[in-house]
Amino acid sequence: MMTLAEAEALDARDPLAALRDRFMRPDGLIYLDGNSLGMLPQASVAASADMMERQWGDRLIRSWNEGWIEAPTRVGAKIAPLIGAAASEVIAADSTSVNLFKLIVAALRRDPARTVVVSEAGNFPTDLHIAAGAVGCVPGAELRVVAREELASALGDDTAVLLLTHAHYKTGARFDMVDWTVRAHAAGALMLWDLSHSAGAVAVDLNGANADLAVGCGYKYLNGGPGAPAYLFVAERWQAALANPLSGWMGHAAPFGFTDDYAPAMGMKRWLTGTPPVLGLGALEAALTLWRDIDMTAVEAKSAALFDIMLVAGEAAGLECVTPRDPAARGSHISFRTPDAYAITQALIARGVVGDFRDPDVLRLGLTPLTLSYAEVWHAGRLLCEVIASGEWRQPEFSVRATVT
Amino acid sequence: MMTLAEAEALDARDPLAALRDRFMRPDGLIYLDGNSLGMLPQASVAASADMMERQWGDRLIRSWNEGWIEAPTRVGAKIAPLIGAAASEVIAADSTSVNLFKLIVAALRRDPARTVVVSEAGNFPTDLHIAAGAVGCVPGAELRVVAREELASALGDDTAVLLLTHAHYKTGARFDMVDWTVRAHAAGALMLWDLSHSAGAVAVDLNGANADLAVGCGYKYLNGGPGAPAYLFVAERWQAALANPLSGWMGHAAPFGFTDDYAPAMGMKRWLTGTPPVLGLGALEAALTLWRDIDMTAVEAKSAALFDIMLVAGEAAGLECVTPRDPAARGSHISFRTPDAYAITQALIARGVVGDFRDPDVLRLGLTPLTLSYAEVWHAGRLLCEVIASGEWRQPEFSVRATVT
Repeated sequence: MMTLAEAEALDARDPLAALRDRFMRPDGLIYLDGNSLGMLPQASVAASADMMERQWGDRLIRSWNEGWIEAPTRVGAKIAPLIGAAASEVIAADSTSVNLFKLIVAALRRDPARTVVVSEAGNFPTDLHIAAGAVGCVPGAELRVVAREELASALGDDTAVLLLTHAHYKTGARFDMVDWTVRAHAAGALMLWDLSHSAGAVAVDLNGANADLAVGCGYKYLNGGPGAPAYLFVAERWQAALANPLSGWMGHAAPFGFTDDYAPAMGMKRWLTGTPPVLGLGALEAALTLWRDIDMTAVEAKSAALFDIMLVAGEAAGLECVTPRDPAARGSHISFRTPDAYAITQALIARGVVGDFRDPDVLRLGLTPLTLSYAEVWHAGRLLCEVIASGEWRQPEFSVRATVT
Repeated sequence: MMTLAEAEALDARDPLAALRDRFMRPDGLIYLDGNSLGMLPQASVAASADMMERQWGDRLIRSWNEGWIEAPTRVGAKIAPLIGAAASEVIAADSTSVNLFKLIVAALRRDPARTVVVSEAGNFPTDLHIAAGAVGCVPGAELRVVAREELASALGDDTAVLLLTHAHYKTGARFDMVDWTVRAHAAGALMLWDLSHSAGAVAVDLNGANADLAVGCGYKYLNGGPGAPAYLFVAERWQAALANPLSGWMGHAAPFGFTDDYAPAMGMKRWLTGTPPVLGLGALEAALTLWRDIDMTAVEAKSAALFDIMLVAGEAAGLECVTPRDPAARGSHISFRTPDAYAITQALIARGVVGDFRDPDVLRLGLTPLTLSYAEVWHAGRLLCEVIASGEWRQPEFSVRATVT
């Protein structure tokens, strides 16, 4: 097991160390939940105040012409390099769920002979729920949800789209993006990736994998704030062929022409629906400036090293790790399975280590390279061992279920 | 024509006058566009800073259990009294466009024998565009768009839902909510109101009119900020029967149960889809506190008086008013039709009077009783007369079209 001095030595030579000061970090808290809600960048505080007082308060409606109307495009362009996309292939809009609906319906309408959406049992729930809603909007369409090991054989002539979450929200297991995109294409289907747990966590190369479609969330590793706008990606080659079923005015070719008939905008703008959530886009855009000089290789290397520290601690505490050991086969969190996961999560929080519990038996600890030091993760590992060795998690108050999360 | 002294006398006894100080108002600007983007309430500045620094920055993920998860319900309950709804009938979510999609699809699925959505030609474009998208998601459904005078005869045994915007975005003309709801019901159809230009502008009584469904926007008269979350209303009697086609995890009966199968929440929560836009909800919620002690009778009376001032000025300037003279038959803006509307709008802006232009020939001036004084509107009327009498609007720069708005 690594010593604290060794962890501190890693911090001393961490090329990402300076980034920690660019976030607001509450005193005494070791935050291992940046995979659920990323921390607050200092830049977002200033951007939000400017957005409120100058852009909204002072400039008022004029701000639409002074930057707001292009915010979805601008934010999309800033996300693009993090996911291996061209700037013209990404736009920020709505929630991940709403964006999934748009793309699944569009994919189902591409070829009437292909009526099936294939996805994985145990995928993040909203992906499956939205896919069920989307197939309900296309006559004859159906959703086929199968276990991971049956995915390959579930693909066929009838498959319109394969919907997979790149890094699993619970286990952290990551699909090989190239392999699965090839499999989808071999069946003649489109490949739709949910990047919520991978963008900003690991290097993602959608175009390198020849992916067709993707969605992702703004409030996890992208640090966009609670309920931040989400984004969607449509590969250049599909942009003219696919249409948005949520055909609102902001996706119109001429939104201010005020015509009764809908005509989709060219490029990614057709994936907009209503008036964009400007306040949320402002916070997200400010957070994205953090990535300007970041090398994703360094992010992945730090994530892998943080994982090793926590893995050793968790195993020393007798927990079963359900996250793959191979860094290329996982995202940037580590999960332990234990029937006492809920109480252990609560006992850790009482010790100042915030992770989260995922029903029914997973303790999930986010390892966000931009905001965590090696020493912090070392201390979190030590506290995890103490909480378990002392049995303090057995205190009755730690088993009282909160309403949510 | 009223004198300035008379306008100032009205201000001196205006029961709403004190509210003006609760908004940030840029020096030297007469803002007649609160019907497009409401002004910034002072309370929202403080709420936004608290949301960023304390709730997000310091409390982080814990804030979900400390208020965020209930924000859509809480904001909906604060909108409810402004639209004549019960607190349990309104929820804040997504954009007006996305919410329209949900309700139109749900209305079409209620009875397979009723396949037609009826709406008005020249309705706000997104209503028609979204309705077109929604009928595309229900087999056999169609959209029937007719002129206002043909609406009554367009209703029939085949009508699923009548979709009308209560106060017209361009002319300000307001439908009689009781009459048209009765007409829809007489045909066996549901009545769906878009309240974007009426909530906060005029007294609205959805339950008094026995309306079934409604949507509306948060960033106009509700002052929720640019791209604020929208809201939807489903009358109690329909809540169990209608389902959200955008079936995302936040509308699930147990969002944190993480099950593959979708089961809708009871009550209005089923109309949620993805993670709620917390930052936008915070600004909107703070703005809604302004309405706590406001009597809508006083709002309507002031709106009517402001209208009269501007009507006299516009007619003195030789403009044709296209907004109904009867206060009960309009919202809270006044529109003049002239082929030179674009250049006149720009020339007025150059004089510090911000209204807006609506293609192809409408000058639209918002009369928001919470933020405007009688004297301001008097000055705006005077400036309108000067701009037209002087011919200064003919300066070539006023005809250069901006990108948007």
